[in-house]
Amino acid sequence: QHFRGAQDFEFTVEDGRLFLLQTRAAKLSAEAAVRIAVDMVNEGLISTREAVARIDPACINEIMTPQLDFSRGVPTVIARGVPASPGAAVGRVALSADAAKAASALPMADPVILVSQETSADDIHGMAAATGFLTACGGATSHAAVVARGMGKCCITAAKDIVVDPDQGILRIGGEIFHEGDWISLDASTGRVFAGKVPLLDADGENPDLKRILGWAIGHAPLAVRANADTPEDAALARDSGAWGIGLCRTEHMFFAPERLPHVRSMILASTTAERKQALSKLLPMQQKDFAELFRTMSSLPATIRLLDPPLHEFLPALKEVENDLVLARGAHDVAVIQQLESLSQRIQFLDETNPMMGHRGCRLSITYPEILEMQVQAILQAALNVAAEGFTPIVEIMVPLVASAEEMQWLRRQIDEVAMEVFVTQGNRIDYTVGAMIELPRAALCAGAIAEHVSFVSFGTNDLTQMTFGFSRDDASKYLDSYMEKGIFRSDPFLTIDRAGVGSLIEMAIREMRARKPGIKIGVCGEHGGDSASIAFFASVGVDYISCSPARLPMAQLAMAQAKSLPAELTQPKRGCTAFV
Amino acid sequence: QHFRGAQDFEFTVEDGRLFLLQTRAAKLSAEAAVRIAVDMVNEGLISTREAVARIDPACINEIMTPQLDFSRGVPTVIARGVPASPGAAVGRVALSADAAKAASALPMADPVILVSQETSADDIHGMAAATGFLTACGGATSHAAVVARGMGKCCITAAKDIVVDPDQGILRIGGEIFHEGDWISLDASTGRVFAGKVPLLDADGENPDLKRILGWAIGHAPLAVRANADTPEDAALARDSGAWGIGLCRTEHMFFAPERLPHVRSMILASTTAERKQALSKLLPMQQKDFAELFRTMSSLPATIRLLDPPLHEFLPALKEVENDLVLARGAHDVAVIQQLESLSQRIQFLDETNPMMGHRGCRLSITYPEILEMQVQAILQAALNVAAEGFTPIVEIMVPLVASAEEMQWLRRQIDEVAMEVFVTQGNRIDYTVGAMIELPRAALCAGAIAEHVSFVSFGTNDLTQMTFGFSRDDASKYLDSYMEKGIFRSDPFLTIDRAGVGSLIEMAIREMRARKPGIKIGVCGEHGGDSASIAFFASVGVDYISCSPARLPMAQLAMAQAKSLPAELTQPKRGCTAFV
Repeated sequence: QHFRGAQDFEFTVEDGRLFLLQTRAAKLSAEAAVRIAVDMVNEGLISTREAVARIDPACINEIMTPQLDFSRGVPTVIARGVPASPGAAVGRVALSADAAKAASALPMADPVILVSQETSADDIHGMAAATGFLTACGGATSHAAVVARGMGKCCITAAKDIVVDPDQGILRIGGEIFHEGDWISLDASTGRVFAGKVPLLDADGENPDLKRILGWAIGHAPLAVRANADTPEDAALARDSGAWGIGLCRTEHMFFAPERLPHVRSMILASTTAERKQALSKLLPMQQKDFAELFRTMSSLPATIRLLDPPLHEFLPALKEVENDLVLARGAHDVAVIQQLESLSQRIQFLDETNPMMGHRGCRLSITYPEILEMQVQAILQAALNVAAEGFTPIVEIMVPLVASAEEMQWLRRQIDEVAMEVFVTQGNRIDYTVGAMIELPRAALCAGAIAEHVSFVSFGTNDLTQMTFGFSRDDASKYLDSYMEKGIFRSDPFLTIDRAGVGSLIEMAIREMRARKPGIKIGVCGEHGGDSASIAFFASVGVDYISCSPARLPMAQLAMAQAKSLPAELTQPKRGCTAFV
Repeated sequence: QHFRGAQDFEFTVEDGRLFLLQTRAAKLSAEAAVRIAVDMVNEGLISTREAVARIDPACINEIMTPQLDFSRGVPTVIARGVPASPGAAVGRVALSADAAKAASALPMADPVILVSQETSADDIHGMAAATGFLTACGGATSHAAVVARGMGKCCITAAKDIVVDPDQGILRIGGEIFHEGDWISLDASTGRVFAGKVPLLDADGENPDLKRILGWAIGHAPLAVRANADTPEDAALARDSGAWGIGLCRTEHMFFAPERLPHVRSMILASTTAERKQALSKLLPMQQKDFAELFRTMSSLPATIRLLDPPLHEFLPALKEVENDLVLARGAHDVAVIQQLESLSQRIQFLDETNPMMGHRGCRLSITYPEILEMQVQAILQAALNVAAEGFTPIVEIMVPLVASAEEMQWLRRQIDEVAMEVFVTQGNRIDYTVGAMIELPRAALCAGAIAEHVSFVSFGTNDLTQMTFGFSRDDASKYLDSYMEKGIFRSDPFLTIDRAGVGSLIEMAIREMRARKPGIKIGVCGEHGGDSASIAFFASVGVDYISCSPARLPMAQLAMAQAKSLPAELTQPKRGCTAFV
């Protein structure tokens, strides 16, 4: 009652008298901390704001994700990697996406852990089937890491000591050899890998005390936390978790669905604009249906839809695959197939890029192929009109990725407005929409004031901004970032926690310029840093209006944002270990 | 005499009287302009400063490089590309570096033009043999462009209409087919390609009037123009052309020499630090010899030597090549060779990067493999000590590439100083040297003030800075930059002329921070923009001390820098077409 918090007491009894020597704030498990905070609010000892302030956002994972149980000791660590998505998993090794899917489809299947060199868009089916991922390459923001956080699964990347040999069905870790089906355990909160089955403590996603605290947090930071969601299912999950909208819907994820990929590929292989439009017209109704579902789910909350972003070669098969097929087709003398494969192979080689991350992607696709933008804007607005007619309230935000200059944004804005006008005329009805820019290139941040003139909102894509500002390819950086950490040159991974001195100063500068030119502009963050509590505190301090993160990180982000946005300084968390003499 | 310039007169004779109606500044060829300027100085009409001010730096190429002679009409243009290195060439088509070398080695050989998809470090022997280069891919700063400017040869890149098929020995341009040995003509000042032999006007590199003007220019802008030179030969050329030193010596070019490559490869393939040091010890005397020669040539002028920059996989053969060799070795059951090739293939795959431009290169190599830095610093300082003992005056500047942070620079600085101390102790003698950082990442520019604390000089690497700031890979950007130009979104190629709004503002900001923290710091530019007159004017205006460019661009840069650095506003060039009534 005196310290308004749980205390450890030190006392002695001398000559029959009780002496209280000292007390200190008690060390609490995450579960105990939320329970005590809620109890104290109920007893009227602290306010809901204080309760929110007392919970360390990082400890939420302890409650929300499964954890390995080390109460009977910690087994030998056989490998270490980057803790890329928190939680834990115990399962049987699968060395390919197909193997993971097959193993999990067995009756009474045990959980499966997908272990691979790295993952790519082709592996999604296997990742959906697995309970956790372990990769030899990559880093905190490689494909496996991002997908894991999106799916709320645990993931360890850049585990350099593992050697995956899928052809032999063998996984080598140090001197040991594992086969598909062998058990391993991942502690992805610390990046440790163990052999065999370590006991697993289940997640307590329904913890009622945590739910109350999160409810207060959401109320204390209105509009401040959105979710990244690409599917209506993710959107529903986000809405249920109290997200104030979708901050990033990546439309390309809709392009990868197996029934759509053939149309996406004919769009890419088209040799004329007419052919390309033909293929796009097949995709339009599918995208429109997705968007309609998304708008229904998010009715009355904003949904930011990003136009197509990745380089087109990501939608084509690997060259090696095509060349193998070509050898077979030549053997079978199948002229039609040979021609088809040859043209596919040529196209893949033409689209091949030395540095795809800095290549023909983002809004550059909309500049060279305006018909892609046209199809997407049509699908978005037709869906919004239809859904509005059903009685829902879609709030449509169209976001342009990888903007580099104000002139580019101006040109694209005009294209979007022209397509919108055509849709409205054709449909005999109109609907509000806003257009925004993703600020993910240093040049966009440097010229943000001028870009702001052409948009209603911007969202910082901090993954790419970190990549370009440092010149660190996130797929390759693990090869040297370890050395930087070992030598003490870096204190933290800039892909996990925002680099305040460099990337942060760029963001701050951009926000200052934008607010000066357009005070009412809405400013968000939709990179992976939106799921990191230290980064969130920084974003709030420089005037970001909202952050958007993976649905699995929403609770942590809501708590961090509430602490950063709404709490006076004196309400900071009681320091653990602070001592008071009575 | 009145206008102090050559004039066109308009006159009439009426009733036996001569009326002078009006005059205007005469349109002059480049040759006439330099001749008249020198004459007027000789006549005491204008000062040498005014003479320097009157010559358009861009027109120097008209005198210094060969030009196609269109006096009898312009033939049909068969292809267009990016004018990547000025001048003209008329020669026989060679479709590979080997073919170019073979064709030029014939007795009485005709000049050869190397036509290829793109060029790489492996093609240097063919490029040395050719008189000009034409590539289907690339852009203003792709490999062929940079090498061409370095060699003073003409080059057209990104000629999209050409299709090179070296296996068939065929070059397709539009409907036409060319074979090896056919004649073509390049007008690389405008990026046009012609079939057959167009008459060629020789360069007049010894034009005495131009030489006098350049002499004045060098005197008016002391210390302001250096040259990029990787070999003692280039250094001698630079010194003869009045360069005030070497602004960039790329040590990796010394690694590619055929007799060194095996040692470079064993250094890369080493599995332990001891093995790596062993291989490096073989390279040390070779590098030391190069540096000694360079220091002798540049005695009393500064020589900036950049530590190893490119990713290591650039020194290894292509994976496909190794795999082909592996098939042959397996056929021959040659166990030793098979093992060697397998380990090479594994290493190549390990070093393969998704985005090599943002990968494991630059000073990141010195962080992960400090022994490479150690060897290079030893070679530099031992060479300098030896050369000083011979009576020369080496001015040693060691430059660290791809710096991202002050902590990184601090760590590397300490390494360099420690190696230097060891060398001095071992040799029983010491010599002055300075350490600098290349500012070529946006983050380095953002944190330039802090980086400046650890260095005596910096040099902006504007190629990479442009790449990272825009997120434009220079090797891939030609695929979409055309669309940007066509649609009027860009007015000029940011790889040719510095982007003032974005990259320029970053440079300006960095210079302000550095001058504030360390007023005496020496600031240079060593990107390709150092060879562009509009960019030079910008660099001078924001307080850059010196620029460094390819030896072939020195005259242009000296003139541009003299105009920007030393001339009052009233001495700007007389506007062409300005009219005066008498």
